[in-house]
Amino acid sequence: MADLDLMRKLAIEGQTKILLLVIDGVGGLPLTPDGLTELEAAQTPNLDSLAARSICGMGMPVAPGVTPGSGPGHLSLFGYDPLRFDIGRGVLEALGIGFDLQPGDLAARGNFCTLDAKGLITDRRAGRIPTEIGARLCEKLRQIRLPGVEVFVEPVKEYRFVLVLRGEGLVDGLTETDPQQVGKPPLPVEALRPQAKPAAELLNQWMAEARNLLSDESPANGCNLRGIAKDPGLPQMPEVYKLRCGAIATYPMYRGVAKLAGMEVLPTGETIEAEVQTLTQHWDDYDFFFFHVKKTDSRGEDGDFEGKVQVIEHLDTVMPDILALNPDVVIITGDHSTPAVWKSHSWHELPVLLYAKYVRRDGVTQFGERPCMAGGLGHIHNTDLMPLAMGYAGRLAKYGA
Amino acid sequence: MADLDLMRKLAIEGQTKILLLVIDGVGGLPLTPDGLTELEAAQTPNLDSLAARSICGMGMPVAPGVTPGSGPGHLSLFGYDPLRFDIGRGVLEALGIGFDLQPGDLAARGNFCTLDAKGLITDRRAGRIPTEIGARLCEKLRQIRLPGVEVFVEPVKEYRFVLVLRGEGLVDGLTETDPQQVGKPPLPVEALRPQAKPAAELLNQWMAEARNLLSDESPANGCNLRGIAKDPGLPQMPEVYKLRCGAIATYPMYRGVAKLAGMEVLPTGETIEAEVQTLTQHWDDYDFFFFHVKKTDSRGEDGDFEGKVQVIEHLDTVMPDILALNPDVVIITGDHSTPAVWKSHSWHELPVLLYAKYVRRDGVTQFGERPCMAGGLGHIHNTDLMPLAMGYAGRLAKYGA
Repeated sequence: MADLDLMRKLAIEGQTKILLLVIDGVGGLPLTPDGLTELEAAQTPNLDSLAARSICGMGMPVAPGVTPGSGPGHLSLFGYDPLRFDIGRGVLEALGIGFDLQPGDLAARGNFCTLDAKGLITDRRAGRIPTEIGARLCEKLRQIRLPGVEVFVEPVKEYRFVLVLRGEGLVDGLTETDPQQVGKPPLPVEALRPQAKPAAELLNQWMAEARNLLSDESPANGCNLRGIAKDPGLPQMPEVYKLRCGAIATYPMYRGVAKLAGMEVLPTGETIEAEVQTLTQHWDDYDFFFFHVKKTDSRGEDGDFEGKVQVIEHLDTVMPDILALNPDVVIITGDHSTPAVWKSHSWHELPVLLYAKYVRRDGVTQFGERPCMAGGLGHIHNTDLMPLAMGYAGRLAKYGA
Repeated sequence: MADLDLMRKLAIEGQTKILLLVIDGVGGLPLTPDGLTELEAAQTPNLDSLAARSICGMGMPVAPGVTPGSGPGHLSLFGYDPLRFDIGRGVLEALGIGFDLQPGDLAARGNFCTLDAKGLITDRRAGRIPTEIGARLCEKLRQIRLPGVEVFVEPVKEYRFVLVLRGEGLVDGLTETDPQQVGKPPLPVEALRPQAKPAAELLNQWMAEARNLLSDESPANGCNLRGIAKDPGLPQMPEVYKLRCGAIATYPMYRGVAKLAGMEVLPTGETIEAEVQTLTQHWDDYDFFFFHVKKTDSRGEDGDFEGKVQVIEHLDTVMPDILALNPDVVIITGDHSTPAVWKSHSWHELPVLLYAKYVRRDGVTQFGERPCMAGGLGHIHNTDLMPLAMGYAGRLAKYGA
């Protein structure tokens, strides 16, 4: 298992370049038990040719049988044990809409809900109100002022919003208001440690005012706060690995997670080609690049097997341009599986490809789940990938004499 | 490595059914270096056909090179790290004879021994006296009364017996009396913590009276107490995994270990067919079944290669009846290896088969040690099997947002 302290101790500076290419949700399943997975079915001559010059294996993001969310899935790839480091739901939600979260900010995921005359919840999602209505309600909630802190209310999608408090001395360790069942009222925010009491009081004041402001609305006449959290203060990758780290991603959430880990987020366009262009332009500026491909996960969530195949094939066509940059180490994998037949993240291991000059080629000639099961890396934890990349990049000093 | 707290946090209720089929001591070795193991030699068309629809691998019960006892071997399969959770020898011995151990009971494994005129041990096993004599001596020792507690003395086999004290406030943390070598006297029981002192005094009083009562016997004129322990208070499987757990086993020890883990023990007959009948009758009552096949281990301990093959082939014939119940997840493996050529438990890894709808079939078409070494699960720790079963059963919530 990776150990950040060990990396911090052994990491040395160098001229080598590491590319971590994350194909979101790449792991898949066949449509019929004996069929091919999305990755196996895709025509990927460039990835296959790279696999033949690489060492391959299977990677586990969190723990056996455990399905990772996007936060833990990426932390693991960056070398952080996701069972030890935790990005709260409020923080992830704020990052997901591109909110410029600051280190001291307290962020909560908000859900509009429906309350009956006694104040008991009858629908935890307020009938999944349209996004426009959610946005109008957020506009209304922006009237609420709290003593000594700035308050941000940002709509997300349908019944979801983000609440952020910004000010000095906001301490986390706060319970959620959502009782997770209907027939109960929203709960008060409680401080799990004495220092969090002032923040709990502010949030309860906000909740009371929100309820007044929403009282004449229907069906969204109430709301709940979940996952109230701060920037977890992750160890910073440049400090741990002595790497200048650049992140290229088209979706806000992944840019946000990269920023939490200390990477610089590079502005880029919407397409894979635009991301490759960004990579090319900044090639000399960084030692490590996190390159994120999103749409494999989206198509998997849609249950669109063929669409996921096409995204993989699309990525394959730009591989020559990426490899022309001559990276010293390339790791290609995903943050979790999203099999189209499952229409959701899953617990299955990920195929992993590690290319570097000094790998022992293992005979795997196709980048796919079944071929990688027989690969020379064996079955590893994804937190081991950054240390392996560092080793192959010649960026770790010898341990001991 | 599995983590019960993670399971407790993520487990969700469901309608799916998990079957853990434990073929005791199934792992084997060939009679000649290039030959087949017991499992490989057995004609098992049903297990092989299931393997082809499964993902296979190799499982380690405790640690590399370490031979597990039955207690640790099973704890590992149930998801408990056997290096962290420990069932004392006295408790296991009591369970092994079907003694109805209660939570506060203090149990010790007793050994009759031979003492010389100075009270020094000359034979730690009293010449392996016949079982009948051991039983008669136990009858004699039942005269001993201790203040405030009930005392049970139960014969096991040859020179072995079980001593159980039942009463309020018996605290464990007690040393053994067996000096583990001849030429020394039995040692006093010592309390390893102050609260255990009353129990130590009771046991020393019992030892003194036992020595008096046995003084005119030969060769068993003394005894020792080992592994003095209480029910370890394991986390309970229904609480950890949110599964209704039923255990089907023909031998008392396995029923006892299952009960310690919180399973309900289902009455069953002596044969595999009777066990299948019990499984069928109770199929709707539980979410998880521990199904134990004993005789593979017995034949292995006997050094009876062909006998072990026959037990495996016998099990294979009932597989269609088991699979007709339509379990969502089936795990088939052993608690440890018992190669007939070794005539004892061994440290070798176990072949593992995991069947579920959404496995990636790995090309393994025979359930055997060598085929499973190339399986898609790779080499796992047996404590990972319950989490994997939970994941494949759709009974774990996503970890993190």
